[in-house]
Amino acid sequence: MTLLEIGKLAQQASYELAIADSKQKNAALETIALALEANEASIVAANKKDIEAGKQAGLTEALLDRLLLDESRLAGIISDLRSVINLSDPVGEEFDSKLLENGLKLSKRRVPVGVIGVIYEARPNVTIDIAALCLKTGNASILRGGKETINSNLVLVDVIQGALVAAGLPKTAVQYIENTDRALVGELLKMDQYVDMIIPRGNSGLQQFCKENSTIPVIIGGIGICHLFAEKSVDVEKALAIIENAKVQRPSVCNALDTLLVEQQIAAEFLPKLAAKLLPLGVTLVAEPKAKAILGDDASVAQEGDFSREWLSLHLGVKVVDGLGEALTHIREHSSQHSDGILTNDFTLANQFVNAVNSAAVYINASTRFTDGSQFGLGAEVAVSTQKLHARGPMGLQELTTYKWIGVGEYLTRT
Amino acid sequence: MTLLEIGKLAQQASYELAIADSKQKNAALETIALALEANEASIVAANKKDIEAGKQAGLTEALLDRLLLDESRLAGIISDLRSVINLSDPVGEEFDSKLLENGLKLSKRRVPVGVIGVIYEARPNVTIDIAALCLKTGNASILRGGKETINSNLVLVDVIQGALVAAGLPKTAVQYIENTDRALVGELLKMDQYVDMIIPRGNSGLQQFCKENSTIPVIIGGIGICHLFAEKSVDVEKALAIIENAKVQRPSVCNALDTLLVEQQIAAEFLPKLAAKLLPLGVTLVAEPKAKAILGDDASVAQEGDFSREWLSLHLGVKVVDGLGEALTHIREHSSQHSDGILTNDFTLANQFVNAVNSAAVYINASTRFTDGSQFGLGAEVAVSTQKLHARGPMGLQELTTYKWIGVGEYLTRT
Repeated sequence: MTLLEIGKLAQQASYELAIADSKQKNAALETIALALEANEASIVAANKKDIEAGKQAGLTEALLDRLLLDESRLAGIISDLRSVINLSDPVGEEFDSKLLENGLKLSKRRVPVGVIGVIYEARPNVTIDIAALCLKTGNASILRGGKETINSNLVLVDVIQGALVAAGLPKTAVQYIENTDRALVGELLKMDQYVDMIIPRGNSGLQQFCKENSTIPVIIGGIGICHLFAEKSVDVEKALAIIENAKVQRPSVCNALDTLLVEQQIAAEFLPKLAAKLLPLGVTLVAEPKAKAILGDDASVAQEGDFSREWLSLHLGVKVVDGLGEALTHIREHSSQHSDGILTNDFTLANQFVNAVNSAAVYINASTRFTDGSQFGLGAEVAVSTQKLHARGPMGLQELTTYKWIGVGEYLTRT
Repeated sequence: MTLLEIGKLAQQASYELAIADSKQKNAALETIALALEANEASIVAANKKDIEAGKQAGLTEALLDRLLLDESRLAGIISDLRSVINLSDPVGEEFDSKLLENGLKLSKRRVPVGVIGVIYEARPNVTIDIAALCLKTGNASILRGGKETINSNLVLVDVIQGALVAAGLPKTAVQYIENTDRALVGELLKMDQYVDMIIPRGNSGLQQFCKENSTIPVIIGGIGICHLFAEKSVDVEKALAIIENAKVQRPSVCNALDTLLVEQQIAAEFLPKLAAKLLPLGVTLVAEPKAKAILGDDASVAQEGDFSREWLSLHLGVKVVDGLGEALTHIREHSSQHSDGILTNDFTLANQFVNAVNSAAVYINASTRFTDGSQFGLGAEVAVSTQKLHARGPMGLQELTTYKWIGVGEYLTRT
């Protein structure tokens, strides 16, 4: 099947999904859950092939771990799938309804986006996760996973498609691009006739490729160069607890802290305490000259570009700034507009910071680690958008929908 | 000044605009209104140069009319500008506020998008219109008008910039690309580092060019291939009044009717009445074979591609369909997802139509001509989006904004 055929079939399927009600979509999701349980053995066996191939290809332990789908992980994924069933369906909601002076009864109705293309890498759980969230919101999906997970993904999609048919929905509601040739990604990105939204879940290289080559709207996201600014009025001990949480709890994720900005007036007191707290936890402090002068041997010297890196590790950039103005300038230059915050007891300054920093999530006295669909109470997370249109920050089910205007008249003409 | 410098300055200006309050922005708009009044003579004189050049270049009367900016039109534009002052400012509104179980006080705050690039053609009124709407919503704008209006636009932007400075805002909040070389449009579309949103206001060639070349999110829109489906239960006379309104009232605009679909069962009665009503008004009926067989000499034969054309004239495509299914198939194939409607007395069928047609605006027994920011009560119209992300249909002030999440804690860490 060509990619164009896949696109055409996805669009056709999207017409059926758009008029499916919540009950039908939830029944299909439960059918998928049951089918995944029933096919546990073949799924795990397919994944073993991927793991074997990965070992032979010399993948790192970390990558092999991301690849792994054993019985217990599959059970976890199926449990997550059942949570999606319990979420409320945003589709069909009507809002901004009004009877206009011209006589038109007007409202906005939330509807599926249509066809969503998702490009992702190693983890096979994404296959089920995204297929389920798209299905829940009445969207057809076209999935493109990494070549490392091809065996697992093909079996997973086969099981999902079988369940779709059993539930009376088109199997083309969830499709997978089997050909692992990278050129197909470029082709997918041009299929604006059939695909309505592209979600690239991967590194900045993939994001950039999509931005440059797609004629379809792309949800850029997932890259977090996150900042905290410790302002002079801050409660030092409490601030250090937040910094520890933001940096150490899970350093490999996008909402982890990358750079700490400390106001000059408190730097001499603050930075040694920071070192005392974080160094024993394995953190490496990477300091610009002013911070280095205070930290001495407790920090290495920041190199060109270090403040524009998403560390994804136990490194923390540290910089001394002379106040809010310099903090804002630094954040504007280096932030990926994911999550940035201020640590302060000064209410006025906190508000100035919030007004001036235009990131997807801006915090006052809270950890950047909160930027997460589950923490934000969205029930699910499709991606974390760092762009400004359509959706910002954690995207839940609602962000997989759009709206249409519905106008009802009694044979009404415009005057 | 290079385009990159323009972009950089626009971004800097956007930081100032983002923290300007409504009072300050409205004062700047009033200063612009006064400055336009004070500079009426030089504006009109500059426009005369454009008109002269246009005449020598052999522009049509219609184009010259679009180009014209005389005293009375300028007065109209200034009056529109003062209406923008009276609209309420969406920026700063907070919504979806909640105190989460994890202790985080979370809300979404509406904020400006940042820097908006607008590419448009002949009409000089767009320059003032867009500059004002962007300013009202705290966005910096980079304008690129057609080369036919260069003299008018340069004077207008000069007047606007003078007023901005007088009002204490950066003159770079509104900038104009003076170089009329088309290559600069391509360059603008790649400046995703500085520009957050592109609005192309022009024909489908421009829209396509932006879609294919932009690394910045583009608001595609303004192309309307609009349908009405006259279902067999319809009240014929009332339906004809809507069709006349949709086709004849202003045929040159995007929400005008392009194609009428008539259910077979009533076609023999309906179509002759249609011809009797529309032909005297100068409408040309363009019919597929079944409709042609009924209309005879009252219609011409539809050619390949006629049902995929936005007529923008007193032409109306006419097709007989065997019921809702064929109507939906035709609309899905040919609609530009701008405005489509059903004319019917059957409540169930009307709802099926509304559920199945995924256009920006879907109507029951109302004219497609209602798709308009002013008719929809938005107070202003920046563009009519026919894409699915960020905004659909008429875009008002709110659609020039995005949101950021604001999380406030009392030194809160994630568990």
